[in-house]
Formats: sequence, structure tokens, C-alpha cells
Amino acid sequence: MKHYTSIHDIDDINSWIEEAKTLKKNPLKFKKLGKHKTLGLLFFNSSLRTRLSTQKAALNLGMDPIVMNVSGDAWGIEFGDGTVMNGNTAEHIKEAAAVVSQYCDIIAVRAFPTLTDKVKDESEQVLTAFKKYASVPVVNMESATGHPLQALTDAITISENTTKAKPKVVLSWAPHVKALPHAVANSFVQAMQKMDVDFVITNPEGYNLSPNIVGNTPVNHNQEDAFKDADFVYVKNWSSYEDYGKVKNTDPNWMITKDKLGAAKFMHCLPVRRNVIVEDAVLDSDSSLVIEQANNRTYAAQLVLKKILENG
Amino acid sequence: MKHYTSIHDIDDINSWIEEAKTLKKNPLKFKKLGKHKTLGLLFFNSSLRTRLSTQKAALNLGMDPIVMNVSGDAWGIEFGDGTVMNGNTAEHIKEAAAVVSQYCDIIAVRAFPTLTDKVKDESEQVLTAFKKYASVPVVNMESATGHPLQALTDAITISENTTKAKPKVVLSWAPHVKALPHAVANSFVQAMQKMDVDFVITNPEGYNLSPNIVGNTPVNHNQEDAFKDADFVYVKNWSSYEDYGKVKNTDPNWMITKDKLGAAKFMHCLPVRRNVIVEDAVLDSDSSLVIEQANNRTYAAQLVLKKILENG
Amino acid sequence: MKHYTSIHDIDDINSWIEEAKTLKKNPLKFKKLGKHKTLGLLFFNSSLRTRLSTQKAALNLGMDPIVMNVSGDAWGIEFGDGTVMNGNTAEHIKEAAAVVSQYCDIIAVRAFPTLTDKVKDESEQVLTAFKKYASVPVVNMESATGHPLQALTDAITISENTTKAKPKVVLSWAPHVKALPHAVANSFVQAMQKMDVDFVITNPEGYNLSPNIVGNTPVNHNQEDAFKDADFVYVKNWSSYEDYGKVKNTDPNWMITKDKLGAAKFMHCLPVRRNVIVEDAVLDSDSSLVIEQANNRTYAAQLVLKKILENG
Repeated sequence: MKHYTSIHDIDDINSWIEEAKTLKKNPLKFKKLGKHKTLGLLFFNSSLRTRLSTQKAALNLGMDPIVMNVSGDAWGIEFGDGTVMNGNTAEHIKEAAAVVSQYCDIIAVRAFPTLTDKVKDESEQVLTAFKKYASVPVVNMESATGHPLQALTDAITISENTTKAKPKVVLSWAPHVKALPHAVANSFVQAMQKMDVDFVITNPEGYNLSPNIVGNTPVNHNQEDAFKDADFVYVKNWSSYEDYGKVKNTDPNWMITKDKLGAAKFMHCLPVRRNVIVEDAVLDSDSSLVIEQANNRTYAAQLVLKKILENG
Repeated sequence: MKHYTSIHDIDDINSWIEEAKTLKKNPLKFKKLGKHKTLGLLFFNSSLRTRLSTQKAALNLGMDPIVMNVSGDAWGIEFGDGTVMNGNTAEHIKEAAAVVSQYCDIIAVRAFPTLTDKVKDESEQVLTAFKKYASVPVVNMESATGHPLQALTDAITISENTTKAKPKVVLSWAPHVKALPHAVANSFVQAMQKMDVDFVITNPEGYNLSPNIVGNTPVNHNQEDAFKDADFVYVKNWSSYEDYGKVKNTDPNWMITKDKLGAAKFMHCLPVRRNVIVEDAVLDSDSSLVIEQANNRTYAAQLVLKKILENG
Repeated sequence: MKHYTSIHDIDDINSWIEEAKTLKKNPLKFKKLGKHKTLGLLFFNSSLRTRLSTQKAALNLGMDPIVMNVSGDAWGIEFGDGTVMNGNTAEHIKEAAAVVSQYCDIIAVRAFPTLTDKVKDESEQVLTAFKKYASVPVVNMESATGHPLQALTDAITISENTTKAKPKVVLSWAPHVKALPHAVANSFVQAMQKMDVDFVITNPEGYNLSPNIVGNTPVNHNQEDAFKDADFVYVKNWSSYEDYGKVKNTDPNWMITKDKLGAAKFMHCLPVRRNVIVEDAVLDSDSSLVIEQANNRTYAAQLVLKKILENG
């Protein structure tokens, strides 16, 4: 593995999960692996968990993290080919990516979608450009259409908490006031498709994820029905994919309640809007795995960095 | 001591002062104490001295500092209980504090008051929430009503510079164009009340600090009278407490001059507005201790972190 | 050398170039030199290369870099002498510089010109104040009128890539939509004047750099003529110096093309606006040295920090 930009960069998810669990027991074991190496964390968008957990992962491996908020700290970046740059962008990604490669041994990038231009978002302009023009490995810290560090975290968390050989996992849409990306949901679907779980997606009509992502996974528009006998309910809002980037439904009946959840465990990538996505009673109960998911972000990132360093 | 959020977390201020002076002589002596441990510095507001000195203190102890500007780098944080989060805040402090605890061994927080809502400010909403929901120790880098790292610094500086067993210390209000918090003044009062000093506060009518802070400390509305035989004059502007957060007086006669100061030493936490709070002639003279106060910020922070690490 | 704020702080540019090349071969050789020492990087303006390469240089020397965006993270800084600070600035440089000196062993500063007030810009207010009031060495990370870290980089890059004892180097103005500083061009001119090169400047009428900088260097207003037999063409836009800070010419005929460049190498400090300053065909060809220039930023900064540390 050179880059880690998609869940498909994982060759064998079960062995990765086991290795992450081992790392978690002894996070400083490979403290010398990253010595004298720098991880550049480039944020085109806001971040809390990813910002902190990826730095922590780098420190655990002995790396020096260097953080940059691209928008605030540096220049507007141009991605178009052949552009006459007489507008607001001052530096082309061809130079920016090549230059950052001179100072960093690994580059991690966060860049959210436009949610207005489906073709542009699905082209993964920023991530693709970094992979093309950087001379060092690139890690996706959430791109336009995927968040594979989160999905790896989620896979680890399900593996740690399951009591069954083949648990039932439900991905449920929930309401939100703003238009949110599909990245977390997409990567979670792809991770579950690689695991030995009974997986179903539930969302309102008009809210199906991209058919390229959903594939053969069953989609049930009846949330109650989908939740029957669920072991894990993974919750996430996303804006419409069909009517791209639009908020067409804020029906509070899709909010997750303790009653609906039953005996299942509740999962969410955070940040989560309380009493909009899920009621307090769920988050404040033992059914919630959200804090442990956040904890596992460190070990997912650390595993990815470790594999890249070992390969380098 | 688990947390350091108030001057009252100091059990014996004299022994702390002595320990800080010893640390200052050999700041790298405990370089191994914080090895492999991270200090998260979360800023809801601007900072220069606190930002740099607390990082330096962490580095002196071998810790890895991770800095985050919460407002700019992450999400709007919700503090209310039971809120339906369909507004501008995207993450509840319950999750945020618990999550940051996963990545940091100690969390340091700066969060200024509203200066419009006295009840809210005195509830210390942000700090209280971090103490409640974080699973690791919390350090106050200036909250709505207190700045105990500054007050510890000031106590150390007075101890270093006094030539008397019981010096006379005056806290004087001075004019300023903007409404400023009471935090620095409050914590300084509380520190002086714990030390063996002859302490008096001087401020205009209508500018008394909270009676809960002032207690039995004498308040003199005649600045000239209060300054008689002073050894240390600690100067700070604050907005009205009685008419909460209002600027009711900008009388330039309260500005500190070389004439007024006499043989006393001048102290201020910085930043200080020259020729508004104090005239150039004072700051540019040997009577000013402000740069040494700033220097002692490192050792105050280092002592606090050391005590927390030793306790952990 | 105490400070590094101008190319004139270099005593012997040829020996510096040789030492930088040696460092580049073994960048971790002096990893212990900066142990337990902090480099404060203070940015009054945006930065990508300088931000990352200077941190990387510090890490290579074992230093701990601490980064601060002065405008966003801290307070408005006052530079005037005797000012009554009742306006927007909250802290005077006298205090700020002295205070930062308490936490950092070396202070690196970036502060761009106003481009509206030539006298103020040429006084190098920010840099001069830091040199005056800081008690530790100061490094210029691009000031109002100079960028000596860039110029040292450029000198190293020319030395590495020349095939002649005395190459011909041309500094060419190129068009740009915005008013840009003279700093990079100024320091490049000064560096070339110290090297054994055949050096000429080409720019449109009305775009001559300061006569104090240009000195005896020939200025040719005919770009084609200036480029004849050139080995290195260093390109940079700057606003008018004569009609200070104005954009008086955006003539696209001054853009650098592959045809114009001929066999010469293309150099630019970056960021560069493609197809405004230079056409894609140049940047995407082997004639371009811009990525190697960016790489050498690390070793230029590392050499400067090393010399300061050795002197300290």
C-alpha cells in the first residue's frame, strides 16, 4: 500500500482489525518506526477528532506532525488544468503538492465536497491531485466522497463489541438541518461490505446513496423494520444524492430514540447534534459506543501510518 | 490535585512558590516526567503569553503539546443540557470533552466570559463542563472569572522581588477603552489573600469586584492614598461588576504614572495599552516587572503540569 | 552572526552555499545542536513553503518549533513610539518581542509591506522592532523589503545547477493581477551581486526596483535582449517601486514562455500563477527548477539556524 485514500486500499480488513487491536494494547511499541519523519496534516476544512487523533497516532509512532490550515494559513489553491490563474487562486496544486512532499514524509489531507457539483465531487479533485503530484504517500482525512479512517475505526469498534460471529449492522439516515456530505456513510457501507456482517441500509425515499456505493446491499425505507434484531445501529445524516446536495427531508420521526434502538448498540462518527439526530437518552446510556469509536480513531490512523512507514 | 482551575486548587501557596523557584533554576530536570504524554491546549479565545508559555512548560517536561483554536479549527460547541441542536452548534461539550480526553493526557482550556450574562459567566459553563465530561485533568488557561496560572505567576514574581517580610501590595484599576473581564483581577486578589502581604485594592466608585472575591480585603477609592508606601502596584483594567460588563469610567487620572508609582514596582499581566493604562516612563523603567512576570508564566505552568503528572 | 534579517548578514556567500550543500547530504547530522531549544515562528501573513520548510529545518536540528499566526491567534500589535493605545492595537511590540524572547531561543518573523507607505515599508518597522526589543536572535521569514532565506535558497540552487564557472543569470519581471512586494526580487538581486555571475535585470519602464538595491546591476527594458545566452531566468512579479505599490502594467507579452526561455533554467520562488507569470509548458518541463528551489528552503533555513545556534 502506497496511499490510504479509500477503504479499498485495505487488502484484508479482518487482519487489519486484528493488528489495530494489538496496536491498541501497546501503542508505543513502534515509537522508533517514525523517528525523524514528518506527517503533514493539511486541512481545507474544520476538524476536531481527525486533527487530534491523527496527530496522536503520529506521535505514538515517533513522527513529528506539522499541521496547516490551508485556507487560513496559506494561499488559495488552483486545481484546474491549463487555467489562466488571474483570479483568486495563487498557487497550483501541481506545485503545492510537490512542494509539501519536500518537507513531509507522508501527507494527510482533508477536503470536503462542494455538494453542488456531483461530477466534480466524484472526481475527488483534491485527493486525486495530491496522489498525482505529491511524491510521498497520501492519507485521506475525509474527502469529497469517502472517510476511510473513520470506516476503519468503525470496523474495529464493531469487532471489539460484537458478541456474535455475524452481527446484524444497520446504517440509518437521521434528520439534520444542514446539507451534509456522503463521505462517512459511503466508506462505512464499503467497510461493511468487506466484513462478515448482516448489513442493511435504511433511509427515506429519495435519500439512497450512490448506486455505485450501495451495490447489492439491501435498502429498506422502513426504519422500524430495518432495526429488527439489529446488533449495531450506525447513524448518520446525509443530504440527497439523487437531488444532489439538497435537504429534502427533516422528518423528526427518523431521529434515533431509546425505544427504537432496543438492545442494539448505537454508533455515530461525531460530531452529533443531540435531539436532532439522536435523543439524549441514547447518547447518555451504555448503548452508545461513540466515545470508544473516537478512541479507536487513534489506532486506525496509527495502523495506516505504520503500514505506510513499513512500506516506505 | 486533579484539576487546576482555581487558585483554591493550591494547597499551600508558599511551598508552591518555593518549588516554582527551584524549577526555574533547572527547568529540564523533569524532562522525563511527561514523556509520551500529550497536553491539549484548547483556545476559545486569543492568546499570546499563555499559548507560548504553556507550550514551553509542556516541552520542558517532555510532553507533546497539541494546540487547537476551537472556534476556527473545529465546530461550534453546545453547552446547554437537553438542547435540541438545530442551530449553530454542531457538537455537544459532553462528546467534545470526552473525545479530547482520548487523545490528551491533560486538557488546558481558555474561554472568556460573555460580559453580558453575569449568571452564565459565574457558572463557568465551559470550564465546569470540561471538568464534568473530560476523563483527564483540566487546567484553566483563563476562564470567565479566573486566571489562576497568571495569579500563581504573580505570586512567584512578588516573592522573588520583595525585600520585606511582609510587603505592601496594591491592586489598582486603570482606564481602558474596551470592556475587559474580571478574571485576572479576581485570581490576583485570591492569591494575595493567601500570602503574607499587606494587601489593598483601589478602584473608582462603581468598580468594586465581586463581593465574593473581595471578602475582607480593604477597598480604597482614593488611588493616591492607596499607593502610599506601596512596594508592588499591580495594575489591571476591568469592566464594572455591579453594572455588569459596562465601561462606566475612562478617567485618565487613574492611569499609572512614574510620579504616582514612586518607589514601588509596577506589575501587569500584559497585554497592556501604553499611555492608557500606564505611561511609557513606567514600562520603560527598571520599576517594571512585566517581562519577568511573563517569564514566570513558564514556571507557573510547568509547576502545575508537574504536580498533575506526579499525581496521575 | 546574531540575527539573519538581510542577505548582508552572510559574510561569505560561497562558503555558505558549500556548507548548505554538505548539510543537505546529511540533514540530521546536527540533530543534537538544537536539543531543548525552541524556534518561535510568528506569522503576520500567510505562508506555505516558509512555514513548513522552516519547521522542518528546526526539526532536523532537534529544535521544537512553536508556530503562531499573530493576527488570528493573538492581539493587534502596536509599533509606534509614544502612542496612546486607545485604538485597535492591544499590545506594544516592546512587550510582545521581549515576552516572546522568554519562551523562544530564536524568533522567526514574517511581516509583509503595506505597499502604500514606502517610508514605513523601508523602515522595516516590524523586523527592526523585533531586533531592538527581542533578547534572542531574529530570523527574517520575509519582511517588507527582503526575503533572505529565499535568496540563500536561490543561490544554493544556482550553484547546484550551473555547468559554468560564471553563468548568466537574468531576473525578469512578469505580469500579475495583484500588487506584489519587492522583497523576493530585492534579496535575489543582492545575492546575485555577491556571487560570481553575469547578472542582468529586465523589467518594463516604470518598474525599476529601488536604486539602492539595483546599484550598478544593468537593467534592460527589452526582455528578449536580456534573455540572450541566459543560463538561469529567475522570474518574479513586483508592483511599481517608482509609483509605489501600483500595478501599472499587466502586459501579457512579459509572460515567460518556452520559446523565450530557450536553453535556460526557469526559477521562481512560488507560489506562481500559471499562464499569467509563466506558461504551463515551462513549469511542466525539465527546465523548471522551482520544486528543487522549494526543497532547498529547508537547507537554507537549517544553515541559518545552525549558524545562530553555534554562535549562541
